[in-house]
Amino acid sequence: MQLDELDTPCLVIDEARMQHNIARMQRHMDALGVSFRPHVKTSKCLDVVRQQRDAGARGITVSTLKEAEEFFDGGFDDIFYAVAMAPNKVQRALALQARGCKLRLVVDSLAGAEAVLAAGAQAGIRPRVLIEVDVDGHRAGVHVESPLLVEIGTRLQSGGADVLGVMSHAGSSYACSTSAALLRIAEQERARSVLAAGYLRAAGLRCEVVSVGSTPTALSAQQLDGVTEVRAGVYVFFDLVMAGTTVCGLDEIALSVLTTVIGHQPERGWIMIDAGWMALSRDRGTQEQAVDRGYGMVCDAPGTVLDGWTVSGANQEHGMVACTRAGAQDDIEKVFPIGTRLRILPNHACATAAQHGSYHVLRGADASRNWPRFTGW
Amino acid sequence: MQLDELDTPCLVIDEARMQHNIARMQRHMDALGVSFRPHVKTSKCLDVVRQQRDAGARGITVSTLKEAEEFFDGGFDDIFYAVAMAPNKVQRALALQARGCKLRLVVDSLAGAEAVLAAGAQAGIRPRVLIEVDVDGHRAGVHVESPLLVEIGTRLQSGGADVLGVMSHAGSSYACSTSAALLRIAEQERARSVLAAGYLRAAGLRCEVVSVGSTPTALSAQQLDGVTEVRAGVYVFFDLVMAGTTVCGLDEIALSVLTTVIGHQPERGWIMIDAGWMALSRDRGTQEQAVDRGYGMVCDAPGTVLDGWTVSGANQEHGMVACTRAGAQDDIEKVFPIGTRLRILPNHACATAAQHGSYHVLRGADASRNWPRFTGW
Repeated sequence: MQLDELDTPCLVIDEARMQHNIARMQRHMDALGVSFRPHVKTSKCLDVVRQQRDAGARGITVSTLKEAEEFFDGGFDDIFYAVAMAPNKVQRALALQARGCKLRLVVDSLAGAEAVLAAGAQAGIRPRVLIEVDVDGHRAGVHVESPLLVEIGTRLQSGGADVLGVMSHAGSSYACSTSAALLRIAEQERARSVLAAGYLRAAGLRCEVVSVGSTPTALSAQQLDGVTEVRAGVYVFFDLVMAGTTVCGLDEIALSVLTTVIGHQPERGWIMIDAGWMALSRDRGTQEQAVDRGYGMVCDAPGTVLDGWTVSGANQEHGMVACTRAGAQDDIEKVFPIGTRLRILPNHACATAAQHGSYHVLRGADASRNWPRFTGW
Repeated sequence: MQLDELDTPCLVIDEARMQHNIARMQRHMDALGVSFRPHVKTSKCLDVVRQQRDAGARGITVSTLKEAEEFFDGGFDDIFYAVAMAPNKVQRALALQARGCKLRLVVDSLAGAEAVLAAGAQAGIRPRVLIEVDVDGHRAGVHVESPLLVEIGTRLQSGGADVLGVMSHAGSSYACSTSAALLRIAEQERARSVLAAGYLRAAGLRCEVVSVGSTPTALSAQQLDGVTEVRAGVYVFFDLVMAGTTVCGLDEIALSVLTTVIGHQPERGWIMIDAGWMALSRDRGTQEQAVDRGYGMVCDAPGTVLDGWTVSGANQEHGMVACTRAGAQDDIEKVFPIGTRLRILPNHACATAAQHGSYHVLRGADASRNWPRFTGW
């Protein structure tokens, strides 16, 4: 199977770029002396994550119990479920631990801690828990300076849990657009996480793990003193939002959607393609960046960016491609005749990949490999 | 299985509301004397579409060949594939016709017509084709007044295709916010489509079908003289965008995402839930309406809207719920303790449903039925 034989729309991985991205991250982590634990929510694909493991990653991070179960069944036994535990999920999580998985859970509240302890007691299993700390006001986590942090740790330990340490995620790094800003938020994520670990240790808790990360902070950090491991997900493919933060170039984006031209609206300068939001996702992550990329940047079939062309609008199965360069739209029916194949670089790789059931893996024009990805919770 | 036993996040249909929506549309179509052909891209679910058929729908509309194949295998044989044909898809489409499916194709260009004719000749099959006309500048289609319309029709007929008629979709109706504006765009869709059919007939083409539709125009039309059938999809579930156009009330929205509270950020007034954009979709369709509903409106578990509460932000598996009413966020940890179940009304039912593998069907609190939906192309 060659690239030009694939049905469209479909999802394509440029394997050389993906391997470059995996090597780049692992090299940076090795240089900083920390362990790397990739977030598999981006790919949800065993074939991708095996390459991350083979490059040196230790353990994985997941965002759903379905991911934990799928990857455990696929041979991964060191799994960090990095979303605060809901009472209705603890039993299912501990069942995985009972099967031999070294599963880590997260809590950021006393109520969450009690739910974990109660389920652990009932199942006769010692839960392995990290406490999430909030380092940038972006999402979840206990405030580093709040007495609640030590209260949760103490309660977990007294209740029979194994308090492994702290975790944080500086998600606000996604909104940065300079390397200076990224360096600052990376250091903030590191420093506040290490501070939180210090408070727990001062209270007599072991706290061996200090786990931080997001793709922009992971790649921007210049020193990670006190941190034991880093988590990152989207770096494996990169995307237009990551390019907007400056942590990658367009030529490092390994994921794209292959599409076919199905019509034109010459008066409006539109090329109609068979990739709408169902194939591209509704993610408009570049909308708030300096350059809005619509629903994605347009490349020719081999993958070269076509200057100024973006997917300017999307219905469910129709995409509208337009160009910002004056005059570029004059001859669209001749330049992009019906049947022309294009590739679209996504705003957000995690969201675009989630719209597809598998990846077609490109090595040059060879597209004979198809890697399944799973969905659901 | 009861509502309170379902794992979260998950997708829920209120069956009584869905049946009300199906009956409402069919009654309106019957009163206007036109045939109704539901668009199954919304549900992608045999169980839903069988209820639409049983209520009086004739034939279905699809947006992908996968939908056509799945529904043909499920017993539907009158199928309208309402996206302009790409050369690389004609063979697969005609293969379905060869199996006995009364499949209709669409073209809106001479190149598309030639591709259909060539594949038909090669397969020894007479393609059944409609010509898409552009009635509102929203998406695809030939301009009604363009000589291209008759050129395409004539070429199709001379080349051996069966020219069934014209189709249009006034997608700009989604941006309306008053019933007066909806009435106007519905009449525009009708009048321009009928005009196009007249041009084809004057050129000696049969043009038996005049197919129009979108949910807002279908429900707003007061007369459909000259139209033979109407297509609409999202009405079966409705959503917040549709409520914003005034064609439905919040109490007619039949689709929601069931979620669980997993934490709080009291300083920011946030309730954290286990439904992020993976469960809700990235669709922000209400962003451009008079009232922006964030990533959805929040209801209690039985489905009553909680005044002022919306999903204000979403990460992949985290949703942030906040309230616009002053003081409402003071006691969130007590009012919405961890483990509380909520339901989220979606911006766009088609997009939210696409994030899930099945529907849990509610009748009162009974949730014992699970209807699969399919994905892909």
